[in-house]
Amino acid sequence: MVSDEMRQMTLLEYRDSLASPRILGLMTVLYTDVVSRSTTWNFAKLLFRWKGSLWKVIWAELVLWLLVYTLVSLMYRLLLNCDQREQFENFVKFWSQYTGASFVPLTFILGFFVSLVVRRWWSMYESLGSTESVATLLASYIKGSDEETIIMKRNIVRYLVLTQAMVYLMISLGFRKRYPNLEALRNAGIVNDIELKIMEETDSPNLKHWMPINWAMSLIKLAKRDGKIESDSDNYVVDLYARLRDYKNNLSRVSNYMCVPIPLAYTQVVFLAVRLYFLIALFANQYLNINNTVGGVNKCPRNSTTASSSSSSNKAPEIELRFGVDLFFPFATVVEFFFYVGWVKVAESLFNPFGGDDDDFEVNELLVRNLQNGLLIVDGAFNKTPAQIRDPYSK
Amino acid sequence: MVSDEMRQMTLLEYRDSLASPRILGLMTVLYTDVVSRSTTWNFAKLLFRWKGSLWKVIWAELVLWLLVYTLVSLMYRLLLNCDQREQFENFVKFWSQYTGASFVPLTFILGFFVSLVVRRWWSMYESLGSTESVATLLASYIKGSDEETIIMKRNIVRYLVLTQAMVYLMISLGFRKRYPNLEALRNAGIVNDIELKIMEETDSPNLKHWMPINWAMSLIKLAKRDGKIESDSDNYVVDLYARLRDYKNNLSRVSNYMCVPIPLAYTQVVFLAVRLYFLIALFANQYLNINNTVGGVNKCPRNSTTASSSSSSNKAPEIELRFGVDLFFPFATVVEFFFYVGWVKVAESLFNPFGGDDDDFEVNELLVRNLQNGLLIVDGAFNKTPAQIRDPYSK
Amino acid sequence: MVSDEMRQMTLLEYRDSLASPRILGLMTVLYTDVVSRSTTWNFAKLLFRWKGSLWKVIWAELVLWLLVYTLVSLMYRLLLNCDQREQFENFVKFWSQYTGASFVPLTFILGFFVSLVVRRWWSMYESLGSTESVATLLASYIKGSDEETIIMKRNIVRYLVLTQAMVYLMISLGFRKRYPNLEALRNAGIVNDIELKIMEETDSPNLKHWMPINWAMSLIKLAKRDGKIESDSDNYVVDLYARLRDYKNNLSRVSNYMCVPIPLAYTQVVFLAVRLYFLIALFANQYLNINNTVGGVNKCPRNSTTASSSSSSNKAPEIELRFGVDLFFPFATVVEFFFYVGWVKVAESLFNPFGGDDDDFEVNELLVRNLQNGLLIVDGAFNKTPAQIRDPYSK
Amino acid sequence: MVSDEMRQMTLLEYRDSLASPRILGLMTVLYTDVVSRSTTWNFAKLLFRWKGSLWKVIWAELVLWLLVYTLVSLMYRLLLNCDQREQFENFVKFWSQYTGASFVPLTFILGFFVSLVVRRWWSMYESLGSTESVATLLASYIKGSDEETIIMKRNIVRYLVLTQAMVYLMISLGFRKRYPNLEALRNAGIVNDIELKIMEETDSPNLKHWMPINWAMSLIKLAKRDGKIESDSDNYVVDLYARLRDYKNNLSRVSNYMCVPIPLAYTQVVFLAVRLYFLIALFANQYLNINNTVGGVNKCPRNSTTASSSSSSNKAPEIELRFGVDLFFPFATVVEFFFYVGWVKVAESLFNPFGGDDDDFEVNELLVRNLQNGLLIVDGAFNKTPAQIRDPYSK
Amino acid sequence: MVSDEMRQMTLLEYRDSLASPRILGLMTVLYTDVVSRSTTWNFAKLLFRWKGSLWKVIWAELVLWLLVYTLVSLMYRLLLNCDQREQFENFVKFWSQYTGASFVPLTFILGFFVSLVVRRWWSMYESLGSTESVATLLASYIKGSDEETIIMKRNIVRYLVLTQAMVYLMISLGFRKRYPNLEALRNAGIVNDIELKIMEETDSPNLKHWMPINWAMSLIKLAKRDGKIESDSDNYVVDLYARLRDYKNNLSRVSNYMCVPIPLAYTQVVFLAVRLYFLIALFANQYLNINNTVGGVNKCPRNSTTASSSSSSNKAPEIELRFGVDLFFPFATVVEFFFYVGWVKVAESLFNPFGGDDDDFEVNELLVRNLQNGLLIVDGAFNKTPAQIRDPYSK
Repeated sequence: MVSDEMRQMTLLEYRDSLASPRILGLMTVLYTDVVSRSTTWNFAKLLFRWKGSLWKVIWAELVLWLLVYTLVSLMYRLLLNCDQREQFENFVKFWSQYTGASFVPLTFILGFFVSLVVRRWWSMYESLGSTESVATLLASYIKGSDEETIIMKRNIVRYLVLTQAMVYLMISLGFRKRYPNLEALRNAGIVNDIELKIMEETDSPNLKHWMPINWAMSLIKLAKRDGKIESDSDNYVVDLYARLRDYKNNLSRVSNYMCVPIPLAYTQVVFLAVRLYFLIALFANQYLNINNTVGGVNKCPRNSTTASSSSSSNKAPEIELRFGVDLFFPFATVVEFFFYVGWVKVAESLFNPFGGDDDDFEVNELLVRNLQNGLLIVDGAFNKTPAQIRDPYSK
Repeated sequence: MVSDEMRQMTLLEYRDSLASPRILGLMTVLYTDVVSRSTTWNFAKLLFRWKGSLWKVIWAELVLWLLVYTLVSLMYRLLLNCDQREQFENFVKFWSQYTGASFVPLTFILGFFVSLVVRRWWSMYESLGSTESVATLLASYIKGSDEETIIMKRNIVRYLVLTQAMVYLMISLGFRKRYPNLEALRNAGIVNDIELKIMEETDSPNLKHWMPINWAMSLIKLAKRDGKIESDSDNYVVDLYARLRDYKNNLSRVSNYMCVPIPLAYTQVVFLAVRLYFLIALFANQYLNINNTVGGVNKCPRNSTTASSSSSSNKAPEIELRFGVDLFFPFATVVEFFFYVGWVKVAESLFNPFGGDDDDFEVNELLVRNLQNGLLIVDGAFNKTPAQIRDPYSK
Repeated sequence: MVSDEMRQMTLLEYRDSLASPRILGLMTVLYTDVVSRSTTWNFAKLLFRWKGSLWKVIWAELVLWLLVYTLVSLMYRLLLNCDQREQFENFVKFWSQYTGASFVPLTFILGFFVSLVVRRWWSMYESLGSTESVATLLASYIKGSDEETIIMKRNIVRYLVLTQAMVYLMISLGFRKRYPNLEALRNAGIVNDIELKIMEETDSPNLKHWMPINWAMSLIKLAKRDGKIESDSDNYVVDLYARLRDYKNNLSRVSNYMCVPIPLAYTQVVFLAVRLYFLIALFANQYLNINNTVGGVNKCPRNSTTASSSSSSNKAPEIELRFGVDLFFPFATVVEFFFYVGWVKVAESLFNPFGGDDDDFEVNELLVRNLQNGLLIVDGAFNKTPAQIRDPYSK
Repeated sequence: MVSDEMRQMTLLEYRDSLASPRILGLMTVLYTDVVSRSTTWNFAKLLFRWKGSLWKVIWAELVLWLLVYTLVSLMYRLLLNCDQREQFENFVKFWSQYTGASFVPLTFILGFFVSLVVRRWWSMYESLGSTESVATLLASYIKGSDEETIIMKRNIVRYLVLTQAMVYLMISLGFRKRYPNLEALRNAGIVNDIELKIMEETDSPNLKHWMPINWAMSLIKLAKRDGKIESDSDNYVVDLYARLRDYKNNLSRVSNYMCVPIPLAYTQVVFLAVRLYFLIALFANQYLNINNTVGGVNKCPRNSTTASSSSSSNKAPEIELRFGVDLFFPFATVVEFFFYVGWVKVAESLFNPFGGDDDDFEVNELLVRNLQNGLLIVDGAFNKTPAQIRDPYSK
Repeated sequence: MVSDEMRQMTLLEYRDSLASPRILGLMTVLYTDVVSRSTTWNFAKLLFRWKGSLWKVIWAELVLWLLVYTLVSLMYRLLLNCDQREQFENFVKFWSQYTGASFVPLTFILGFFVSLVVRRWWSMYESLGSTESVATLLASYIKGSDEETIIMKRNIVRYLVLTQAMVYLMISLGFRKRYPNLEALRNAGIVNDIELKIMEETDSPNLKHWMPINWAMSLIKLAKRDGKIESDSDNYVVDLYARLRDYKNNLSRVSNYMCVPIPLAYTQVVFLAVRLYFLIALFANQYLNINNTVGGVNKCPRNSTTASSSSSSNKAPEIELRFGVDLFFPFATVVEFFFYVGWVKVAESLFNPFGGDDDDFEVNELLVRNLQNGLLIVDGAFNKTPAQIRDPYSK
């Protein structure tokens, strides 16, 4: 038996969401309306969003980075003695060679990687699959309003949703959390015991998500045999089969993208590149030479040879002197942090769009919608064609 | 009842626009004709356009930026005393490290982002949907010129436009402004009360833009049953259904693009990158050392140690001396402003092409055209085939 | 009446061109044969071409640029006095910061823009539309060699060409120059008075290029009704309609590309970027310090403070001394001119391929070919199938 | 005869793998589940994977490189005398001009090359081919459960797998290792002696992988002739043929990609670029001037002229002094090694995805699955349609 | 009559090639097998290939460049007197500003250009066209083994090959070399006198490669009329026509790519960019200051003012001193030569893949294969379906 409360709950949930913007699409982070006029002000308003925003994805890492940066800075300013400071400064200068424009690859590798991830993500989105096309054809091609026919049409729609659920069970952790197994799908009314038994009896080591599609094809074949498909030729059956195939191919494409991800090494290179850059920046972008500008004595009083050499080496790399500005807070690096980490985070959140991020596809909702719409089309709505009256434009 | 004035108005509006270049396409900013010969002069003429131009999209921001730049400049030149000036100069030199070629990521991130936005924009444009294909097939496949048949064909065309209107109601603020709800569409004659009632009676929490398409399919099915489709097999029905599906898929693609935008964080990163760059440039690109070139005394008379050190630090970063040229007006930065802000503005205006920018799709006009052309084809034009006479090339 | 001379002329023109390479394609600038072996020498030979070449597209701008450069150079060398020279030199040094590698965006923005333009250009080329496919099916599906049938088939071909002509009338200035209006098309025998009258009588504010396609469909429908299409089912009609739709969709795509160009602001940004770069280069790349190397006295005898400071500022930016080489002619900038202006010119000439550039599509010729081939296929050639004899490979 | 053990073994193998993640896809390196929430921590965890990881692909080369680097370093520090050291230092400084940002092309060429390889790899993956579509249609279109029909349907599925096997025999070394020739395929039960004999008898110098597809088409034709395909028109046969053609085209695409690889010169350029970069880095990134910082005497006591000149040339290239930091271990270069070699390794492992790398397609497994699923669909599963009962959602 | 020797020769040639790797594909430069495991060693082995390799494509240019470089070097070292040397050195220093990273555009323009060329090349390869699909359908749809039917089917295959030959005659110099005209094709047995006569009689100034396709369609039509196509509806004819259209569209695409090449100016820009870069490098990368390090007197004894100024200008551009290393051989530039010239050569050799390069398509071989396979399928192989026995997997 199906738990009526659950189903009822889902439907109510849905009705409640009617007023909300969620109805517009599958993703919760909508903002296109805000920028329907492309003024700078409209785009600026986007900055004050939280859900799915740059701020939300980077704040944790940024705070952590700033903490470590401050610790290093305090150590240098308060704990080290003169000689250690000099060593630390040399260390900072050494690493500061590798920041900014000298670290070009970061930008390139990110550009290419994000392009790849965005392309895959969009292709996945376009392949999520909707039951509308099949349901519409079913309603139109298979005549008869007797209960047997209606049940058959409803079940075909349900089989489509079942296939989709089986695929999501495999690829989506979020879906698995709600419906951990076929048992849970049975409780939700997506599959019944008879069907489960047939699936279990089928002796195959492979995934069986093609079975419901095959049932649907069998039922269509039966409908044709019984004369419920009022066709002179076989075009209607071929057309229905083609739509079922489209539906299944879409699901296959989605599961392909999830089962054969971008090679691990590529993802690791990109992840490492950005994180190592900011690890280096922890030291390379420290403000130096505090003493020199504060007190009058600017060098440790050691043997003159070393002093002069270190002094000359201090003067040479002017970019490290930072013009005597001691801002304590690494403004420039934080700006870079926004760009690089923000950019890589875009890729990371689109990487697996079947998880639990703000930008991820709401597959649970999609499934419910597919079921509702499909049933509505094959059962309720199709024959309610409006009476034909003259349109106001006719002469 | 439909308000005849409104309809009349729309048609008149249209007739008036016959002479204008608007008739050529959906976008108002046409300029391909100007550059039909690719001489430099022709392209140079494009610079003097205003509508949809670089100038129009950046002038406001440029003026604002220049104002703040001038304020900062005046403050530095007139208000600050010698010590403050020195500090300000150090501050400027500090930030000037991060301008120009050192800020490479800006260019890359813009390049990749603009590519993505342009691709989506064009895909949307190609999916706006036209009723011509379906109307042509309707006119050809469904025979009969009795009123009942004509009404049916006209209504099918209207249902297509209705679906389109329902989708635009969801995604286009500009469309919503003119037709805020289904009621307004009824007043415009796109939907009638009977149809509205059926839609309201259908109990579904989801968007119902598939309903008019289903009505159209039902009507085609009826026409086939009544023998109005003179077909030996079912090819004509399958062909018509396929065209209806194409039409609906196009609208789905458009609404997909609008409902699942580029992830917010990506947009924020790009927006921030450009604006922070010019925020930094407000200070980094100030002209310094005015006193030095004007008066003979070029340093604050303080303790000599600091003076000499600051003097040496002044000499080192030569890029900041700017060769003694004090242009007051930041020519180079304004040039950069043209490029970067202009480029990002291209992306911003294509981001939501259903809004109110100069470059945006004129969906109201498209709808009217779809209705006019569709009705004309199914009702008026089709059977007026010219008498067949020999062509002048035949021997 | 059609002017026989004109038609005759066109055909003769064509016959004459038989021996020329023009027959190979629609574009006149063919050079693939030259590089069929990819030796450097073969590619080097391409440099000596004029038509459609880099030289032809940039020579005018290059000469103009060199003229202004020379004027500036002469002014600096002959007209300015010592102080003015010094100011001019500072001015030059100031701008020379912004040349070469520091002006990175130029390269990127060009790379992305040219990619976009080339992609659109090729898509347009592939959508120009050919009557061959439709004509071949017409000849095969519609039986009968009586005059009535032949006239109908010929007229269908002519209607295709007429649709194409109407689209080109809208988008191609080059086409409009030869055939300024429908009247001119009538004179060329592409449309006759009966058809023109029907088009005029059709009351629509929109473009009517769908009308000839509809006529063609009507005629096919009639042929089917009259039993001229010897079909068991309706497959042949559906197939023919699908080909007509392909043909029309191609033309729609072309006109889409022309009516909805790349946003104006994008084009302006690219145009401005390249031209401003070379405007800056007019000054930034001047050879300086002529006096210093010619005469012995190398500085204006003024107050010593300024002299020494200017001397030090002279020494610092070594890149401006150019190692004492005074080449008069800006070799390096001319090389850059080849690259940047050449690259942007590629984009500019592909921007509107329906104009009058060397690389543009020869649409007049295409139209004639479409008409000739189409008529030949439906009228003359189809039934002349060779007698079937054994092939030499059969055993 | 087929060896029953082998077949049994394969099936058992499969059953065993049911619990493993391998069932999810064709590639063994799955990690999308780990990052279903895109937290940094989740992505960080990916770094600790070994199979298919960055570490696994670069460790050997990295160790080798570090070994040679250490040898060079030790030689310089311990073996060379003062003069040789100076020469070595000059040599190092000379090469250090060509590292880091000065070696830009590396990044670009890698970006473009990796994009190309990834695109080809994904296209190959999508074209591997599955028997499900054809099997489903076979089961539905060809009626009859008599043994003759069942055998025919089973054999058609087997022919599909045979074609696939013949293609893989040509392109996959991994497949060839398990099934070196047609004989081995016969032993595995994919082809029988009768079929082998026909193939041998066919006198053609070309590959014969089209033969099984043709057999399949012949059998379908026979089924149609014998009335086993219950069709009013020929749609079913045309549909089946179309699916067979899809299947074959997919295999052709895969073999195209393998037989016409990226031009050798391109691959060589990329391979060389990365390896030469790190060959240069062996010397260019050595830490210099050890003596100078350790002992007090920092120059070889030779004739003063040379000493002073070398001293001045030592001071000039400050980037080589590395601020007196002698880290022994080339941290920065190792970081670069991660990026560049890791990136190029991604391309190299995707280059031939039919080999034996961790990321490569498991074609043996795919073949078994194709056979199992296909046979199951045409023989076992299709007619087991569940009894139709009301779904829980119906009112 | 056909020359039997020639045909025999071709077939023998083919048989001989059976053992060679050529059978695997159309390109001779196969190397995917070598890298089936992506170890560095496997990729390193690729470097030792000659055919189609980087070495083969660049050796001539590299040798030439090195020769000129040596001449310039010798002239500078042996022929010039002290003053000339100084001038030469200034000249070298002037040009050395424009090398390496300062010449960024080279990399970008190459990246975008190579991408474009590779995309076109691959699209061409995929459109070369194979007769298998059509031949398979012919064999299946057209029943009858009488000689008349067999001859017809064989001739249809031959007509396909003839169309292909006519297209290649137009676009491939390599093909033209073997078969200079239609006469040669007749001698090769691809066309006979009857067919040639019909082609000549057809009065058209345009290319006539659509004629054989039309003949094929006529023959199919005749077969249908004569009841040789055992069809209930017209699906088979429509299907055959669609495949013929696919075949012809593929050939059209190939000839489009060849007849409308990348705009000449673009190719010239890329060619010039690379060659000018290395022309500049001839001078810019010369090793200077030989005398200074060899002899003790390092400057021409002239008036002291100039000497001191030149001395200062010598010191400034340190990058030119090259740290006193006089390697005679320009290692670094040769490395750059590998990259840049190698990369551009990839584009150049893919530019016209119908020529005589190592990587070019072997169209002659393709034609023979198309003919052989096609004839084999329609005549010999199709009806030899193996007897149906139980497969070893059935229970």
